[in-house]
Amino acid sequence: MKKVGIVMGSDSDFPVVKGAVSFLKQWGVPTEVRVLSAHRTPAEACEFAAKARENGFGVLIAAAGKAAHLAGVLAGHTTLPVIGVPVKSSTLDGLDALLSTVQMPKGIPVATVAIDGADNAAILAVQMLALSDAGLADRLEEMRREMTAAVLEKDKKIRSAAEELC
Amino acid sequence: MKKVGIVMGSDSDFPVVKGAVSFLKQWGVPTEVRVLSAHRTPAEACEFAAKARENGFGVLIAAAGKAAHLAGVLAGHTTLPVIGVPVKSSTLDGLDALLSTVQMPKGIPVATVAIDGADNAAILAVQMLALSDAGLADRLEEMRREMTAAVLEKDKKIRSAAEELC
Amino acid sequence: MKKVGIVMGSDSDFPVVKGAVSFLKQWGVPTEVRVLSAHRTPAEACEFAAKARENGFGVLIAAAGKAAHLAGVLAGHTTLPVIGVPVKSSTLDGLDALLSTVQMPKGIPVATVAIDGADNAAILAVQMLALSDAGLADRLEEMRREMTAAVLEKDKKIRSAAEELC
Amino acid sequence: MKKVGIVMGSDSDFPVVKGAVSFLKQWGVPTEVRVLSAHRTPAEACEFAAKARENGFGVLIAAAGKAAHLAGVLAGHTTLPVIGVPVKSSTLDGLDALLSTVQMPKGIPVATVAIDGADNAAILAVQMLALSDAGLADRLEEMRREMTAAVLEKDKKIRSAAEELC
Amino acid sequence: MKKVGIVMGSDSDFPVVKGAVSFLKQWGVPTEVRVLSAHRTPAEACEFAAKARENGFGVLIAAAGKAAHLAGVLAGHTTLPVIGVPVKSSTLDGLDALLSTVQMPKGIPVATVAIDGADNAAILAVQMLALSDAGLADRLEEMRREMTAAVLEKDKKIRSAAEELC
Amino acid sequence: MKKVGIVMGSDSDFPVVKGAVSFLKQWGVPTEVRVLSAHRTPAEACEFAAKARENGFGVLIAAAGKAAHLAGVLAGHTTLPVIGVPVKSSTLDGLDALLSTVQMPKGIPVATVAIDGADNAAILAVQMLALSDAGLADRLEEMRREMTAAVLEKDKKIRSAAEELC
Amino acid sequence: MKKVGIVMGSDSDFPVVKGAVSFLKQWGVPTEVRVLSAHRTPAEACEFAAKARENGFGVLIAAAGKAAHLAGVLAGHTTLPVIGVPVKSSTLDGLDALLSTVQMPKGIPVATVAIDGADNAAILAVQMLALSDAGLADRLEEMRREMTAAVLEKDKKIRSAAEELC
Amino acid sequence: MKKVGIVMGSDSDFPVVKGAVSFLKQWGVPTEVRVLSAHRTPAEACEFAAKARENGFGVLIAAAGKAAHLAGVLAGHTTLPVIGVPVKSSTLDGLDALLSTVQMPKGIPVATVAIDGADNAAILAVQMLALSDAGLADRLEEMRREMTAAVLEKDKKIRSAAEELC
Repeated sequence: MKKVGIVMGSDSDFPVVKGAVSFLKQWGVPTEVRVLSAHRTPAEACEFAAKARENGFGVLIAAAGKAAHLAGVLAGHTTLPVIGVPVKSSTLDGLDALLSTVQMPKGIPVATVAIDGADNAAILAVQMLALSDAGLADRLEEMRREMTAAVLEKDKKIRSAAEELC
Repeated sequence: MKKVGIVMGSDSDFPVVKGAVSFLKQWGVPTEVRVLSAHRTPAEACEFAAKARENGFGVLIAAAGKAAHLAGVLAGHTTLPVIGVPVKSSTLDGLDALLSTVQMPKGIPVATVAIDGADNAAILAVQMLALSDAGLADRLEEMRREMTAAVLEKDKKIRSAAEELC
Repeated sequence: MKKVGIVMGSDSDFPVVKGAVSFLKQWGVPTEVRVLSAHRTPAEACEFAAKARENGFGVLIAAAGKAAHLAGVLAGHTTLPVIGVPVKSSTLDGLDALLSTVQMPKGIPVATVAIDGADNAAILAVQMLALSDAGLADRLEEMRREMTAAVLEKDKKIRSAAEELC
Repeated sequence: MKKVGIVMGSDSDFPVVKGAVSFLKQWGVPTEVRVLSAHRTPAEACEFAAKARENGFGVLIAAAGKAAHLAGVLAGHTTLPVIGVPVKSSTLDGLDALLSTVQMPKGIPVATVAIDGADNAAILAVQMLALSDAGLADRLEEMRREMTAAVLEKDKKIRSAAEELC
Repeated sequence: MKKVGIVMGSDSDFPVVKGAVSFLKQWGVPTEVRVLSAHRTPAEACEFAAKARENGFGVLIAAAGKAAHLAGVLAGHTTLPVIGVPVKSSTLDGLDALLSTVQMPKGIPVATVAIDGADNAAILAVQMLALSDAGLADRLEEMRREMTAAVLEKDKKIRSAAEELC
Repeated sequence: MKKVGIVMGSDSDFPVVKGAVSFLKQWGVPTEVRVLSAHRTPAEACEFAAKARENGFGVLIAAAGKAAHLAGVLAGHTTLPVIGVPVKSSTLDGLDALLSTVQMPKGIPVATVAIDGADNAAILAVQMLALSDAGLADRLEEMRREMTAAVLEKDKKIRSAAEELC
Repeated sequence: MKKVGIVMGSDSDFPVVKGAVSFLKQWGVPTEVRVLSAHRTPAEACEFAAKARENGFGVLIAAAGKAAHLAGVLAGHTTLPVIGVPVKSSTLDGLDALLSTVQMPKGIPVATVAIDGADNAAILAVQMLALSDAGLADRLEEMRREMTAAVLEKDKKIRSAAEELC
Repeated sequence: MKKVGIVMGSDSDFPVVKGAVSFLKQWGVPTEVRVLSAHRTPAEACEFAAKARENGFGVLIAAAGKAAHLAGVLAGHTTLPVIGVPVKSSTLDGLDALLSTVQMPKGIPVATVAIDGADNAAILAVQMLALSDAGLADRLEEMRREMTAAVLEKDKKIRSAAEELC
């Protein structure tokens, strides 16, 4: 199976992406986690992206905050799909990272998910890999059914809780 | 090759997605274009998404404006990757559509591109399909080289133009 | 009397709607509380809305955060009035939920109240039911008079408190 | 049938509400249209709202721009449901009117629709009146079916148009 | 001397205006403090404003949060200058109150100060009264000189503190 | 009568303030109009404000766009009331000028009106002068009555226009 | 004298930077103008920045719109000062470019000027070069004096124009 | 070496600029730290800027919050480069300070860094001084290499940490 690369712009972003790493590991998706900055280690970041295809990657996930250039810079060095995770920082509530990630110019898309939405980035990466992997596709369907069941379970509990309200 | 489905919430969004349709056709990617509203034709929209996998689709692209629920609703009925294109409408400059598309809750990602960024949605769809199609992957690399060459060409022209300025 | 349905997109929204449930119960308005997600239980959510009229509902209240599609999706499956409560989440201070709820396209209105304004959603629901229920209408007038009296009471207290300031 | 009152803060808002007036007339809903300003004719605006119930109104619609206080002020003088239509003006793209209309304090709801969404305000008013008028309820269902059919018709046309693209 | 009326929309706004009340008292400016809601006690709020001139008021200060209509509503019932203080509430960081207060339509100004800026509202009120009160005018000049001196004092301290940094 | 000073940051702001100048002239309020920039003619701007009181001014109005520092800078050099008019420029729809004008720190208020709201600035200036000028105060009341009458006149016209709609 | 490099992300940004190029030429500052994209010609952009110092550049100016990564990417490859010019594009009024340019992480500053503010970028570049060039420094002072004179000239004209108003 | 002046609008901004002061001291850059308010000590602020060049300053850094006029006002009194640091305050998350600092009119640039980005302001100041100081230039290159090394170190650690995740 092709690998997923999870790159964060700073190690302070690790709490945001941690769940995504665990998710991919539990699904048996080969995953590499990197701290690479578009500004402080540009050479390494660019090279990582430029060689990602030949190094066996299928999808890249980039998480960064503030003027979040990481996803876009990686996308400029590869034609693999790049998923961007805008990270909320101490000011502007993540809006800066969201706009810096999603508003890419024509020709170089970044598949952007919600602010701090690394979990969805992992699922999206699996959805892409599942295009040519029936096993993953089946498992995604199963996960969706479990999700549905979990909500219905909560539905029951809240209905009870609500009945006791007065 | 798996098909790409391009769904727009209203026929008024057609100018925004037209270029994406042409792009996919020129690349020989089988494409279906639909007008389906999350609110006015919910049954059809849901069924389209729910049966997309079995009907041979690999990726869905959804373009909608204002409270743009279309991409999220489709994503709730399929585990295929869904790309969301927020469309700018007469108020709020597309911010409403962007936030409605990208801020998806955990479990149901939408791969969001820039406001009115349907062209990038098409490229992103091809990048996903190229994960298991070496021909497409090669062509993406070639397109990227052409893009680079085109910018360098413009670089030359502007350098000349700038020299004539005074 | 027709029922009010209160639907939340996640059980984490319960603290926001709790007061609304209590209010309706205390007023003797038959109320059903549900956890139904536009994305994770779309079939159940759609069916709930589609059968709401025949199941005796008069008004639906939908509370959801982030890309809050719930109210709009319910409104797409019923012609009953749907009240939307945008819920503030961890980023963007509720602006995402507000725009996702209120900016509905032509044809499918959602009656949107303030961010986290579930209490007002309950009052609005009663105002709608009171259109054909003179008893409820009288009680709304009475509640308004009590509200006025409560503010005037506070006015007195603050005037005293202010006099002691120096 | 109870009347719908459509109040605008300035005659310059008439183009925004015109369609709503026509819609209600065509549906046979008795409608009164007024220009009343929360700031320039406060006495008349307050009296209109205060006597609305006894004067046979069931629902009020208020359209205003900028610091749009009209809907809230009317809502402060009646317990009838008040629908607010934020109107876009020359600056800030309607955001000022939206926030001024929707962010009402506890106790006094305003049912807010999209910026410039007067058409949806009219539909919402009919939905409220239909709670005790089976004929209106049926007609709303019919309108919804027509809406669906219209979108499906456009779907066909765009599919053809898309096939001719290259 | 003419009185200053300080009106707040809710007693929860008292902490915001408390300093302003103390300031005016210490300056010997006759001040009345009220809790009056544009929506919950509209009659009292309107009457307060309408009779403010004949009751000896010179300036009104109105502090309110969310859809802050209070200043505008008071301004609609008097031709005295009305100063608006937008109050930050639990969502949107005060932007809703700011826009609801400042974006008044032509003909009815509200003199708006910063979010939670009640202290400046009190100073502004004194500046207005000082137009016909040389004693107040002199005292304002003196306060300004003290302010300058206080900053220069801090300047010295920080310069020392900075010299010790390494 | 004390003079009103109208200062604009650039002659390109003249169309915005023109109506205010005419209004004050028609009311017989002595008015001086200046182009003074907080950044390009700081000495002149500061001196104008610093000597405004002794030169017979009662109120200053400052109109500026973008990073609109003019009102704040004038306010830093006088204890006369300063009214700020944020001017919309080619980007950001006036939000930059609004925040730069209204968010003044403690101690130095600017009485801010709506974006491009110079007409209201002129009325507000007159309201301040009227605190010690019964004639102006009466005329403000009269203007208010005329405003009311004008709206009621429009109310009649729109009611007729609405009756002819179908 | 060290050179100034003006880089734009797309030739469509040329109208925005044209004036800056002319300004620098008229001041005799050696200037190179380039079209280099952070995403479409990343290698060329990075190399340009990385070799800028040894190629005789003193300051780089980067103009780009949307998710404007150009200034930040250049800054990641050089320790020369980099000035960022956010360019307004068809959506979001330049806010996306502003935040993408200015919100740089610790360690890699970008000296950001106003949206579409390329003229100021040129002046800022000259201010930097003037730190070691007394001639330039004198000329900046002179330009400032001319600017002041120009505003005072406009001041005279507007004062006349205002006197004729009625 | 020319001095760097760090000016803050209030001593409450000291925590934001403290690191910048230490940085400059450790690099041996002569630094003066001042508390000077554009509004409360305008004369001192203006004089500081006006005499900055003759007093041996090369670069000024100005940190201020809310309606942050300080950087712009200093820039209006000197042709030295002025770096603006927008400071986040209790409302609006620093957006007010950012727009007040960066959106300067033509002719008077302010080199704006990120909200609360004083550390980058210090680096930017050194980059400017380094234009004529080869030692500083070398040290900047060295710091950049250390930064790169530090990120690569973190990269190693996170890769290990990630491998242990499950």
